[in-house]
Amino acid sequence: MVDAVIVGSTGLDDIETPFGKVQSALGGAAIYASYAASFFCKPGIVSIAGKDFPKEHITLLKKRAIDTTGLTIAGKTFRWGGLYEYDMNEAKTLKTELNAMKEFNPAVPPSYRDTDYLFLANIDPALQLRALEQMRHPKFIVMDTMNFWIEHREEILRSVIKKVHALVINDGEARQLFKTTNLVTAASKALSLGPKFVIIKKGEHGALLFSDGIHFSAGGYPLENIKDPTGCGDSFGGGFIGYLAKTNDLSEQNVRKAIVYGSVIASFNAEDFSLKRLQSITGADIEARFKDFRAMREF
Amino acid sequence: MVDAVIVGSTGLDDIETPFGKVQSALGGAAIYASYAASFFCKPGIVSIAGKDFPKEHITLLKKRAIDTTGLTIAGKTFRWGGLYEYDMNEAKTLKTELNAMKEFNPAVPPSYRDTDYLFLANIDPALQLRALEQMRHPKFIVMDTMNFWIEHREEILRSVIKKVHALVINDGEARQLFKTTNLVTAASKALSLGPKFVIIKKGEHGALLFSDGIHFSAGGYPLENIKDPTGCGDSFGGGFIGYLAKTNDLSEQNVRKAIVYGSVIASFNAEDFSLKRLQSITGADIEARFKDFRAMREF
Repeated sequence: MVDAVIVGSTGLDDIETPFGKVQSALGGAAIYASYAASFFCKPGIVSIAGKDFPKEHITLLKKRAIDTTGLTIAGKTFRWGGLYEYDMNEAKTLKTELNAMKEFNPAVPPSYRDTDYLFLANIDPALQLRALEQMRHPKFIVMDTMNFWIEHREEILRSVIKKVHALVINDGEARQLFKTTNLVTAASKALSLGPKFVIIKKGEHGALLFSDGIHFSAGGYPLENIKDPTGCGDSFGGGFIGYLAKTNDLSEQNVRKAIVYGSVIASFNAEDFSLKRLQSITGADIEARFKDFRAMREF
Repeated sequence: MVDAVIVGSTGLDDIETPFGKVQSALGGAAIYASYAASFFCKPGIVSIAGKDFPKEHITLLKKRAIDTTGLTIAGKTFRWGGLYEYDMNEAKTLKTELNAMKEFNPAVPPSYRDTDYLFLANIDPALQLRALEQMRHPKFIVMDTMNFWIEHREEILRSVIKKVHALVINDGEARQLFKTTNLVTAASKALSLGPKFVIIKKGEHGALLFSDGIHFSAGGYPLENIKDPTGCGDSFGGGFIGYLAKTNDLSEQNVRKAIVYGSVIASFNAEDFSLKRLQSITGADIEARFKDFRAMREF
């Protein structure tokens, strides 16, 4: 049994930022999200990696008690190359080699199917749907997406949005999908499709939560040291669902807390390349920054 | 006697946004800031307008009990034209006719000189300095600036920053002045020049406060209806100093509150062109949004 199922990509990334670069570094939405969730609960991943995927990465996941039963090994690992300039809110994609991701057909292992919490990280919405349909009675489904699917799979993307409890989406993508510059309007349109919660991620500026008649604003955590924002959105989503799965409390109040925990994990993630920073933090570090988050907002 | 002295420009603006346009509308940093401050205290302005400046605008200021003893009338009024596209965080300047502002030599009226609170809105730092020097014993000086002065008057700008208690600056300008992309680093460098508080404005994303060892994040207020962001920074600054002048409490806790009140006024300001929205709000509207600001941040 796992506490949260996380569906998404596993990859090896070449990343360059003004603060350094890495090659073939561990990455992918399912990896960042499950690693983030593992601070709160036992996640199980549904993903695909190639035969070239280093064993040490699997060891790393297992050390965090991440269930890898749902990780298929076939072909070559998905590879992504990105460059960040001084405005680190946006990456310039230098290469995308889908490789095994092209053949990815998510198979949710039987041992995962009764899980209450499901995170559909950013992949083709057709695959998100296929994973979702294999779950028996998910209590809380969270999905992420990106501009590519908005441009190429809008219809099926909308049909997946109708089936989830929470949509997590970037500000630019929310504007694009709902054809408005105004985030409040975009959120209303998203809510009208069905989700109870819409969370708009604004990169370093934090995240906004919208639900029926309410909004919640979690500002970004001001970082002295930002090295690599890759995976921040995924680790936000993973921390978010991980905290909800741990507490099993879906009240709006607890959803707000989950957003802050997600933001805390994402803020650590930006402080180093790949999963390096997340590998060095403890539960005490997370609690300390959570408290600081609260203190920096009191008035 | 006035409670806060506000030094800056008076102008007539032509503004176009995706939501409409206005011509020769009341504007200028001193006007927005003093109007915002007038919700909390009695401000006095030090500015210059031309003989073409409509009397009705002066009547409007007087109706809000804004002291206009320091408003010189000479020549032609400063005129600015700006266009906002869908990203309303930045205006494209279409025209700048300095007119009377070229000759502006701020003369602080004797009746203002013992005032404790001084807001040096965005003008040439040489003029900010000249105004500052006419004050007898200002207790709290706040200054704003902009990229033009960073590019053309950096030395004197830095010397003014050394003399103020709070620097209010845009995120992009903070990065430019302190030659770093990182706002935390920029804030540290600003604090090392002398101000006790550094407030970084991030447009729709709110504002950050930095002081010795602390930071405070006031997220932006998510608006359904944004028509014209002109004057938001100025009305933020005016609301900020107005609330401090009213409460006469410079504790960090109260400075946080002042930032939220400034953000509340700025959020109203964006809802219509020129000062139209500010003309329609009451103290009760301000208190209601202040409460909403708190509610949307609780977790």
